[in-house]
Amino acid sequence: MQETSKLKIGLCQLSVTSDKKVNNERARSSIERASKQGARLVVLPELWNCPNSSDFIALFAENFEDEESASSFKTMSQAAREQKIIVVGGSVPERSGDRLYNTCCVFSSSGELLSKHRKRDNCLQIHLFDISIEGDITFRESDTFAAGSDPTIVDTDVGCIGIGICHDIGFPELAMLYRDRGAHLICYPGAFNISTGEALWELMQRARALDNQLFVATCSPSRDSAGSYPIWGHSTLVNPLGEIVATVGHDESVVVAEVDYSVVRITRENLPVLKQRREDVYQFIGIND
Amino acid sequence: MQETSKLKIGLCQLSVTSDKKVNNERARSSIERASKQGARLVVLPELWNCPNSSDFIALFAENFEDEESASSFKTMSQAAREQKIIVVGGSVPERSGDRLYNTCCVFSSSGELLSKHRKRDNCLQIHLFDISIEGDITFRESDTFAAGSDPTIVDTDVGCIGIGICHDIGFPELAMLYRDRGAHLICYPGAFNISTGEALWELMQRARALDNQLFVATCSPSRDSAGSYPIWGHSTLVNPLGEIVATVGHDESVVVAEVDYSVVRITRENLPVLKQRREDVYQFIGIND
Repeated sequence: MQETSKLKIGLCQLSVTSDKKVNNERARSSIERASKQGARLVVLPELWNCPNSSDFIALFAENFEDEESASSFKTMSQAAREQKIIVVGGSVPERSGDRLYNTCCVFSSSGELLSKHRKRDNCLQIHLFDISIEGDITFRESDTFAAGSDPTIVDTDVGCIGIGICHDIGFPELAMLYRDRGAHLICYPGAFNISTGEALWELMQRARALDNQLFVATCSPSRDSAGSYPIWGHSTLVNPLGEIVATVGHDESVVVAEVDYSVVRITRENLPVLKQRREDVYQFIGIND
Repeated sequence: MQETSKLKIGLCQLSVTSDKKVNNERARSSIERASKQGARLVVLPELWNCPNSSDFIALFAENFEDEESASSFKTMSQAAREQKIIVVGGSVPERSGDRLYNTCCVFSSSGELLSKHRKRDNCLQIHLFDISIEGDITFRESDTFAAGSDPTIVDTDVGCIGIGICHDIGFPELAMLYRDRGAHLICYPGAFNISTGEALWELMQRARALDNQLFVATCSPSRDSAGSYPIWGHSTLVNPLGEIVATVGHDESVVVAEVDYSVVRITRENLPVLKQRREDVYQFIGIND
């Protein structure tokens, strides 16, 4: 854990258009705005550079190996460097060979890519969202994307951060794994739809934060984003007691709020559940990497 | 899962006195009351027969091997038989040799003890509650009780039920273990105090229910119970979507509410997170038994 216990973070709830250039510019300016308000880390939404539909995803996907053509990748890196800010880059569709991934890149405050993702698919969403509720919503993310394999934890100069994308938040195991590996903040860029958003979004964030005694930050696109997918919005920061520190409705917005890592320490001292776990009764094992 | 998909359950939020006879009579009559309202299963509170302080606990503890002197044990068994109802018997201090346990007994609708607990400490609270918040509350349950070793899952004619006592609810691993073993309802008799009750009680119940897609029932003593421990109350039933089906304030009360096991099935079909778990990324292992 960093000794700088307090820092501001920004959640950039962007309105996504069908023009990639506009999306890049919105991302850049929202990162600047958060930085001017004192944020040292920003989180962008899931699929912030691209409408959430399979045709656009294929069209807007970037090959990160080819930096010149990867305009969204470059936008994040440049903005991180210019603003001297950590960028948890939501997600951008990534093309790797003949596969598409829903990929989150994390950049250091000097614009360097911090989280490895190319070869080992390190920062991909691990759980693809397939849902089917008759008369309500049917959505099969696995029709479009391949799934990642590894959890991603990134050591930054503003703390040790676990990354999940959207539906990953529904899996307590992933958050527990990050907790076990020392994360004090988990960022979940996500685009919940209106039905599951209203029912589950807040509760899942609060549960992950409380059970693991760490901060949880989520960032969604805004409701008016392009595409037919009805987005919930409500980007939120939750503290280690499961309390909402800051949140917002469904409009485009930049939320800047304070993370205080000393709350992680104090919560764990006051209620030492992590030490009281009964490894003799149950065991939890992450992958080797 | 039982094919009888709907059934009523009763949460008996009892006011505990320092007179064991009175407590036994209150338990008996509340079970009768729940049964008359159609309940087929009742949950009693943690330490329903005894004020929550170490001197009373030692005094009121029962040796279940000696049925004649174990008046609370007998009360539960008789009430279960008379009302033809499953009794999840909250907890009663149990004396076994020179050790004291905080023990939950589950009785069948013919009054038979269903969950083994004597030898292998099967239905004991696994996690003892030790907390220390300066100027607020200090409480060390481990000063009084020994800890149990095994999770308890009970197959009844109204479903497969996991049992946790109070602080056990703070451990997602235990609920996951019950889920993996087929529970569709977890009962947590508990006596949260006012500070952690207000902050954590509801959120923890909703988190366990949602993450594991099953019902969670909690039962607390009422606030006016004897002893210096300030009790939160708020016995609650939560459904597999993490929604509160029924709850109550801090007064003595019998809450009767409906569990519909088909909601477990439907939720798991609509949002198949349990099938989407990535056993290649993380593994969760319970003890062998």
